Amino acid sequence: MRKIKVAILGATGAVGQRFIQLLENHPWFEIHELIGSDRSAGRTYAEAARWVLDGSPPSTVRDKTVLPLDADFESPLVFSALPKEPAVEREPALAAAGHIVCTNASAHRMETDVPLLLPEVNADHVGLIEVQRRKRGWTTGALIANSNCTVMPAVMSLAPLRVFGVEKVHAVSMQAISGAGYPGVPSLDILDNVIPYIGGSEEEKFQEEAHKMLGSLEGDEVVEFPAMVGAACNRVPVVDGHLVVISVGLRDKPSMDEIIDAWDSYRGSSDVIGLPSAPEQPLYYLHEHDRPQPRRDRNAGKGMSTSIGRLRPCPILDYKYAALSHNTIRGAAGCSILNAELLASKGYFDVFESTVTEAAGMSAGD
Amino acid sequence: MRKIKVAILGATGAVGQRFIQLLENHPWFEIHELIGSDRSAGRTYAEAARWVLDGSPPSTVRDKTVLPLDADFESPLVFSALPKEPAVEREPALAAAGHIVCTNASAHRMETDVPLLLPEVNADHVGLIEVQRRKRGWTTGALIANSNCTVMPAVMSLAPLRVFGVEKVHAVSMQAISGAGYPGVPSLDILDNVIPYIGGSEEEKFQEEAHKMLGSLEGDEVVEFPAMVGAACNRVPVVDGHLVVISVGLRDKPSMDEIIDAWDSYRGSSDVIGLPSAPEQPLYYLHEHDRPQPRRDRNAGKGMSTSIGRLRPCPILDYKYAALSHNTIRGAAGCSILNAELLASKGYFDVFESTVTEAAGMSAGD
Amino acid sequence: MRKIKVAILGATGAVGQRFIQLLENHPWFEIHELIGSDRSAGRTYAEAARWVLDGSPPSTVRDKTVLPLDADFESPLVFSALPKEPAVEREPALAAAGHIVCTNASAHRMETDVPLLLPEVNADHVGLIEVQRRKRGWTTGALIANSNCTVMPAVMSLAPLRVFGVEKVHAVSMQAISGAGYPGVPSLDILDNVIPYIGGSEEEKFQEEAHKMLGSLEGDEVVEFPAMVGAACNRVPVVDGHLVVISVGLRDKPSMDEIIDAWDSYRGSSDVIGLPSAPEQPLYYLHEHDRPQPRRDRNAGKGMSTSIGRLRPCPILDYKYAALSHNTIRGAAGCSILNAELLASKGYFDVFESTVTEAAGMSAGD
Amino acid sequence: MRKIKVAILGATGAVGQRFIQLLENHPWFEIHELIGSDRSAGRTYAEAARWVLDGSPPSTVRDKTVLPLDADFESPLVFSALPKEPAVEREPALAAAGHIVCTNASAHRMETDVPLLLPEVNADHVGLIEVQRRKRGWTTGALIANSNCTVMPAVMSLAPLRVFGVEKVHAVSMQAISGAGYPGVPSLDILDNVIPYIGGSEEEKFQEEAHKMLGSLEGDEVVEFPAMVGAACNRVPVVDGHLVVISVGLRDKPSMDEIIDAWDSYRGSSDVIGLPSAPEQPLYYLHEHDRPQPRRDRNAGKGMSTSIGRLRPCPILDYKYAALSHNTIRGAAGCSILNAELLASKGYFDVFESTVTEAAGMSAGD
Repeated sequence: MRKIKVAILGATGAVGQRFIQLLENHPWFEIHELIGSDRSAGRTYAEAARWVLDGSPPSTVRDKTVLPLDADFESPLVFSALPKEPAVEREPALAAAGHIVCTNASAHRMETDVPLLLPEVNADHVGLIEVQRRKRGWTTGALIANSNCTVMPAVMSLAPLRVFGVEKVHAVSMQAISGAGYPGVPSLDILDNVIPYIGGSEEEKFQEEAHKMLGSLEGDEVVEFPAMVGAACNRVPVVDGHLVVISVGLRDKPSMDEIIDAWDSYRGSSDVIGLPSAPEQPLYYLHEHDRPQPRRDRNAGKGMSTSIGRLRPCPILDYKYAALSHNTIRGAAGCSILNAELLASKGYFDVFESTVTEAAGMSAGD
Repeated sequence: MRKIKVAILGATGAVGQRFIQLLENHPWFEIHELIGSDRSAGRTYAEAARWVLDGSPPSTVRDKTVLPLDADFESPLVFSALPKEPAVEREPALAAAGHIVCTNASAHRMETDVPLLLPEVNADHVGLIEVQRRKRGWTTGALIANSNCTVMPAVMSLAPLRVFGVEKVHAVSMQAISGAGYPGVPSLDILDNVIPYIGGSEEEKFQEEAHKMLGSLEGDEVVEFPAMVGAACNRVPVVDGHLVVISVGLRDKPSMDEIIDAWDSYRGSSDVIGLPSAPEQPLYYLHEHDRPQPRRDRNAGKGMSTSIGRLRPCPILDYKYAALSHNTIRGAAGCSILNAELLASKGYFDVFESTVTEAAGMSAGD
Repeated sequence: MRKIKVAILGATGAVGQRFIQLLENHPWFEIHELIGSDRSAGRTYAEAARWVLDGSPPSTVRDKTVLPLDADFESPLVFSALPKEPAVEREPALAAAGHIVCTNASAHRMETDVPLLLPEVNADHVGLIEVQRRKRGWTTGALIANSNCTVMPAVMSLAPLRVFGVEKVHAVSMQAISGAGYPGVPSLDILDNVIPYIGGSEEEKFQEEAHKMLGSLEGDEVVEFPAMVGAACNRVPVVDGHLVVISVGLRDKPSMDEIIDAWDSYRGSSDVIGLPSAPEQPLYYLHEHDRPQPRRDRNAGKGMSTSIGRLRPCPILDYKYAALSHNTIRGAAGCSILNAELLASKGYFDVFESTVTEAAGMSAGD
Repeated sequence: MRKIKVAILGATGAVGQRFIQLLENHPWFEIHELIGSDRSAGRTYAEAARWVLDGSPPSTVRDKTVLPLDADFESPLVFSALPKEPAVEREPALAAAGHIVCTNASAHRMETDVPLLLPEVNADHVGLIEVQRRKRGWTTGALIANSNCTVMPAVMSLAPLRVFGVEKVHAVSMQAISGAGYPGVPSLDILDNVIPYIGGSEEEKFQEEAHKMLGSLEGDEVVEFPAMVGAACNRVPVVDGHLVVISVGLRDKPSMDEIIDAWDSYRGSSDVIGLPSAPEQPLYYLHEHDRPQPRRDRNAGKGMSTSIGRLRPCPILDYKYAALSHNTIRGAAGCSILNAELLASKGYFDVFESTVTEAAGMSAGD
């Protein structure tokens, strides 16, 4: 059994580090190449990276030499933690060169032929890969994005409510500092403080990405989810974990018990069940009166589950509740990895190495 | 010139301490008596109080002996920082005994004959004092409440918008730890965390108090403000300053410039202008893209001004914005003191001491 | 193979919770009985405990009924997370009744016949069990304490330096809030703040416990370690992880390389190697210029390793450095569990159940 | 009466902002010119500066155009908040051009002819101005430095102990994030964390600056204070206020009462008494068992007083205690301003404008 080789773009940044941490001991993937900025290229990873996660870089990457952004490399699977600017050109170029690029960057999320994948919710959007290959002349390559880290818990909690007719969504976020990367938010801005603003058009991303992710693939296109969606985004002094307070208007107003049942029984696409990074339950409803809380609930399902709580009537829309997920695991690197696992289980890497398909268990649902 | 003597109920608690701090060097009032729990009674204030504000207790109170809750005392003006339970009976008893009680407790706020005063917004609600005296047989006494600390910035920011027909208000708060008093929130609950819940029916208080404060006095009653109001309340790791993210639906939808003009030009009731604790401007609109922020804006107007920012369209209601004020100054002790100043300027203390009226400037607007 | 049954005293408190968390899936021990205060007794654990750690109480304890402090129970092994007061009488009573009590309480630490165990450093102090049994007439019972959470990283880092002749130790601690339990430190006291004081005679404990733990068992007594030891203790806004800045005077002044070698090669008593909770390395020296840090290093060795860094000359004594360990794992519940594992490996539980000795691997070093 | 015109170098940075804040309404000085980096030059201050202090930039500076670093300007008094690099050449050049430069930069602190002033402690070191003028050929110009912000509370607390023969000083600091400027410390590095390291040779600065500041001017030179001094510096999640835990060895070991008397009665140089920024008491001893604390005591004396507490015996040296002062007021901009006031009171600005000497009260001690 051989593992699929992986290259990480932007390997020295905060999200790049999370990719490295989550891929240590991954059953299907192994880190083969690390790509960094010009400043980092040519140095060992241990020299180039200022490790900001807990502990130290895994020994498996410490001595790898960081490659420059324009290097040729061989890994079929590429995880991109690039900032938006360099992602614009580099990611499609790598897909054109045959690599399968799972990106956390925002650069291409809203392109009509790029799947914006949250696999439990919209695994069928991988169908866009055929569209992009046809349209762009790509062969083995592909470009798959995951969403903004703030819209993720909202979309995950709304997906099971689609059966009730989601009409309006009003979200107010309280976002962790790790969402801004490193060095990111200066401590003088956030200690004993809240900033009622997130740069990079966070509120607009929330709105448009929700529309796309909850939409349905019809023919070659994703038809936007028709609900009205608004978001007000805030930064709070929390290390990890984005909490979103959501009010929702539902056409067929269900009871609170029906909503909680919908959440608790939700398992999402059957394609996802059994993937290595898929949590046992994508969502948990917490019955305690004061949950979810970022510090106490962000690691639910190894950071891949969304925790929901405080469902109650809303005087303005129908109901309100709070949803939380780990912004750099489920909301970033972990979701990219789950996306790649979905592709692997569907055979997208078979063309690269015949041996790969022999790897025990490399299909979901077994 | 002589000052009006003041007694503080609950003087050793966090709000009681804020009363003491704000009354130091007050031009009209002087602290005469301190009332505490049985545990504190009989000890000097310095011994009885664990001072939680900056610095140390003022030298003027350090050596005063704390009186028990049931003590008779002579101060005509009483500021109450009692918890709800003891306030239920003690506050009306003191008013019946002739004292004018300005309370921060929630016990009596929603009684129909108790003014819930935010003087810029509803100074005319002092008219309820005549109603309560008539109904309860009180003579020189009165009971005047100020509101919950979270609804305060919402009401202050909504007051100037009433001319546009406020129909719906959706608020999400991020509240400071000092709102819970001392010892209040355990640090293990809030460091690196957010709690999406505030005890004591905070969300219900927000809704009902907004209706009363923004309502209009007609005859002997306050007619509730007719807007639909909802609130979702959260605790964040901030020392002081409650930030509220508000979406509002307005019948006569104005432009953003019109709204900002309404805020910037708002001065509130002319009865308030010139009172010692009245800020120069009750509200400020901040044009920076990331304000107001609790740490940087809570002390605007010595903690008595409300700061507003980030006005923008809301996809669900018409507009959204953020409002902030200092929860233990404007939202608690400072508002009680301003309420008492309003009463003093209207002559409510004249009966107690003829000399009081000689005090220079003891009427607003001079 | 059967596991040793465990009772937890003070099971609903913060340290009690850590015991429960660490004992989930323990290979040798299983939680059988939970003992709490009168307030908790008779309720299920889920009802009685306000869980303050991450996530929720394990399903294995949620439905157990909490027993009162004076209940008779059958578990041979007792972990005590009692406050000092109730520990004074209850712990020896349980030992007299035949239970082996591993306590985190401070009540009996300094009694001459009670081992104050940090197993890597002083595993031989278990010899005091025979002394206490002889002196107190106990048969199968015993009372074994672990140390204060702050002295722990100091003692661990000093143990390998004993060969150089430790003469003077000057320690300044920066301690996490979890060290004070729950509710513990009010957030108003510690947010944006440092408190240069820890209650409960923390500095005295540090000094006397270091002398005992680093001492040597000679005959029936521990001869105190002869170094001069001083500590200044401070509380900082950190959730978990006590950082101690230590200056040390050494008789045979070694080079810095010799000291780092002594740390890196230290494995402690061979009795400890292979115990389930023993970390691979009890100490790590971190060569980065700004480590150890509480948030990034507290979980080293699953919270059981001590991290050291910043060794450099000290102008007053010989050298200074920083040491860190997780205060509620290695510094509390985790150390108690390691102590019990040491006793199990030495056969102290054989008398209770013949089957226990059959458990695979229940001896260290295999 | 006319005020002395002031230019601020590095006006847009965090310390520059503090200069602006403290000089608003200063009785003797008025801000005339603002000098910034190339990026800022040519823009208004409001455009160029990202204001990181509370509130907003004072209206008096908002519309001033920021001048480039190499601009000629007319203000006789220059406050420098430059980073070290540009300070190296620019500060002496300005002094050579006739300006009196009071600098917070570290570039020239240890030059033998530059006074390192903490006026209460070493006002007589202004005598070095004559040395530097003679040596460097300067006429009206001068260069006066203030110290590192961490050594300040240590020196202030040690000054009154010199009478007892200070022989050894061991200091461990817990420093606020504002000491690193803006953007300074990334929040990901310090939230729920402590960093046992401060860059820029903080520990060395502490040691050498203490020796110079506590030294005595003999002839043309400062003779170094002969005590052994060591420091271990740490960053903690506190906004403002550096806390230093100090152990001290004293030749003529006094009682604790004698030490507290020495602190409480200390007023420092009589030259300082009555200067506008001089606090009523340079030091306060707090008798509470858990003070000083950064958040509660940093603003003592408007941020210009040093608070001391917890004096107790030290097992290693003689005594230990904790000292605190506001690092960006007394430890930076506020000290520079007090230094300039001292010079003004001694007539150093008389040469620039005859009218200046007419200003009421412009001499200390009146």
